[in-house]
Amino acid sequence: MTLIIHSVTIITLEQRDDIFQGYVVIEDHKFTKVAKGSPTEEEQQTASRILDGKGKWLMPGLVNTHGHLGSALLRGAGDDMPLMTWLKQVMWPNEAQFDHETVLTAVKVAMMEMIKSGTTTFLDMYHLHMSDIAEIVIEKNLRAVLCRGMIGQCSQAEQEKKLAESTTFFKNYHGEGEGRVSIALSPHAPYTCPPAFLKRVAETAGKHHMMIHTHVSETRNEVDKHVSEYGIRPILHLKELGIFEHPVLLAHAVHVDETELTIIKEAEAAISHNPISNLKLGSGIAPLKQFHALGITVSLGTDSTASNNNLDLFEEMRMAALLHKGVNEDPTVTNAFDILKMATSQGATSLQIENTGVIAPGYQADFILINPATPHLTPNNEGTIMSHLVYSCKGSDVTDVFINGSPVYENEELQLFDEEKLLFNANLLAKKFI
Amino acid sequence: MTLIIHSVTIITLEQRDDIFQGYVVIEDHKFTKVAKGSPTEEEQQTASRILDGKGKWLMPGLVNTHGHLGSALLRGAGDDMPLMTWLKQVMWPNEAQFDHETVLTAVKVAMMEMIKSGTTTFLDMYHLHMSDIAEIVIEKNLRAVLCRGMIGQCSQAEQEKKLAESTTFFKNYHGEGEGRVSIALSPHAPYTCPPAFLKRVAETAGKHHMMIHTHVSETRNEVDKHVSEYGIRPILHLKELGIFEHPVLLAHAVHVDETELTIIKEAEAAISHNPISNLKLGSGIAPLKQFHALGITVSLGTDSTASNNNLDLFEEMRMAALLHKGVNEDPTVTNAFDILKMATSQGATSLQIENTGVIAPGYQADFILINPATPHLTPNNEGTIMSHLVYSCKGSDVTDVFINGSPVYENEELQLFDEEKLLFNANLLAKKFI
Ligand SMILES: [Zn+2]
Ligand SMILES: [Zn+2]
Repeated sequence: MTLIIHSVTIITLEQRDDIFQGYVVIEDHKFTKVAKGSPTEEEQQTASRILDGKGKWLMPGLVNTHGHLGSALLRGAGDDMPLMTWLKQVMWPNEAQFDHETVLTAVKVAMMEMIKSGTTTFLDMYHLHMSDIAEIVIEKNLRAVLCRGMIGQCSQAEQEKKLAESTTFFKNYHGEGEGRVSIALSPHAPYTCPPAFLKRVAETAGKHHMMIHTHVSETRNEVDKHVSEYGIRPILHLKELGIFEHPVLLAHAVHVDETELTIIKEAEAAISHNPISNLKLGSGIAPLKQFHALGITVSLGTDSTASNNNLDLFEEMRMAALLHKGVNEDPTVTNAFDILKMATSQGATSLQIENTGVIAPGYQADFILINPATPHLTPNNEGTIMSHLVYSCKGSDVTDVFINGSPVYENEELQLFDEEKLLFNANLLAKKFI
Repeated sequence: MTLIIHSVTIITLEQRDDIFQGYVVIEDHKFTKVAKGSPTEEEQQTASRILDGKGKWLMPGLVNTHGHLGSALLRGAGDDMPLMTWLKQVMWPNEAQFDHETVLTAVKVAMMEMIKSGTTTFLDMYHLHMSDIAEIVIEKNLRAVLCRGMIGQCSQAEQEKKLAESTTFFKNYHGEGEGRVSIALSPHAPYTCPPAFLKRVAETAGKHHMMIHTHVSETRNEVDKHVSEYGIRPILHLKELGIFEHPVLLAHAVHVDETELTIIKEAEAAISHNPISNLKLGSGIAPLKQFHALGITVSLGTDSTASNNNLDLFEEMRMAALLHKGVNEDPTVTNAFDILKMATSQGATSLQIENTGVIAPGYQADFILINPATPHLTPNNEGTIMSHLVYSCKGSDVTDVFINGSPVYENEELQLFDEEKLLFNANLLAKKFI
């Protein structure tokens, strides 16, 4: 099957100024040609489908490198309150009641939101029904990194059971769905995983060649407690425990010192920057300027709808771009191109997904179309498109989403779920929450 | 003409928990009834129009208390660069070339963007073609505060000419359009207006009973220069010059000390908080927590598309709510209800507009409808709607906008301008920019 999209403005994100009117050819899930001008007669004859992208923008799909889909129905269930109050009064009691239907409905609502706002790859760290989630990702043509989140505050037998679940999950699903599914090993955080367990995590990752994904240094309090309990800062501790001997993606890294940043850099670990969640929970502001100065791979994550409260990566890009200019009182600290890279190819790199996040031959055909015929994207031209994507575009401007060369959202119509039924059901299930 | 909207979820914003299923009756530009349940037979018979709001949310229209519509076509024309470079290389050379058509087209694109994202009142500070802008506001049934921005770095004769233009503008248009148009007196900023001129501004405001609107203490550098030039901080200086003897709305107030905050509070002056513009230009972060602690009237402004780069007040609300939680590392610093008040009734109060920003009898019928049947607003119920409006809603969720009881946007159709033609023309005009 060969697909051609022509007469479209292509933002390749390969180079800063690579924006032009042209066409793309897609074969076997990948771009085979990306060119200026129009497709040749011959190209048109061999195509099984030809789409006119007139007036639209074509860019790489967005990559969300940190989230918890299963709790999506807790959106708005507890805001504006201190972290521990929120966890104890809202999150934990509700999550303890989640049945299979609640988790799967939440996952589908979150997937719908992400797809409709241009996300083509997401990471999900959760502890319930992960195999069912993998099946949905396979069936619905999505791309995802799935992790069975492990809290280590339990008996050694239970710890081993969680590790075994993770490795079985890995064996069953890693690389499935023509490579669209990856499985990572996911200790929840140093403050919920004792050192001995984290050592076992590192050993297990080594044995099975798994990527590790964990929360780290999200709040000041958590770091202070770690230091008082273990006499060492969390990231130094993770290094001692062997975690950084494997591919690692750290979520948050808000409160990190220079030694810790050097460890992250030297280990070639990646960071998922979640500025909105960090602000909303009052956790603080991660040092993005320093991450970039050191050349650390940094991507963007939304975290869950319970602490954001949306999954629109355009919002996350805008926040990352704006926040650090203001905090540093320097508008040159971020720029639109670097922020777009964070949300696309740097996201893919963070997730150990290759050849993704650029519109170029040989890259995975994960891409989105945007309709700029709207006041908030006007005026526009090749010189301002990059700016508009970061500073003014909304998830709702996305009209089409292709993953692995196939449409999952086309002309603002969702191909995957019965939207009306699903939203109705989600509202019904949420009535049970406290 | 009597309009009834029934079967709608009403967020009155009068009290925190005032959210219910009901109906509103509108007569002579005002709400005459806001009630739970359904309209009576008699109410239905006397209505000239009855609308079914089933499934939608009805809330006060948003109020944007600081902007510059005339430069709207410079959206994205210069980002990620230092303030003075941006002004000298992008803003000023382009603005110097603006002809009548460019300014009026910019104004209309900005109006379209604001209406489509739920803004029912805006302030515009600009120096070109203000009377024509007033005529559009009158004709198109909008509500606005218009100010002929005055830079005082010129001869005394020119200063007096600008003041005379402002007072003539006030006499011609203040209160026009059934009270929808207000005119304020607008010195650009203390750093562009010498003390003698600011004294004349204060005198003029007193003579004509005009509100004063000015930028103040936006950047650290500007405050430092003011202190070194005049030996006094800007807001103290404004007090000495008599500015605070009149109703005042200050834009930004990012770099203010405790004495200055006390002056603002005692003068009952209002602040237009523009968090996105302040971040984007690297100006810094205004102390919203302290504004609120002192009980200062604070509203929200977008500033221009050249420094934001959108005019969606849902974005501005979200930024105000999130930013100060993170900066203070305390999620209780802001809450959804207070932020919504800033964007509605506090906005109206800031602009000296009475009885606006609450859904209640006697209030101006400026309101919007929102369609929540979308993944990012699901699930929702009366307990989470307020949260969703701040943390997840987008301008694009707005389906209807009523100003002074009449529709300017209905079922996602713009009543005011030929959108396609206007956007085409805006793109054409922008080709001339450097
Ligand atoms: Zn998380
Ligand atoms: Zn301004």
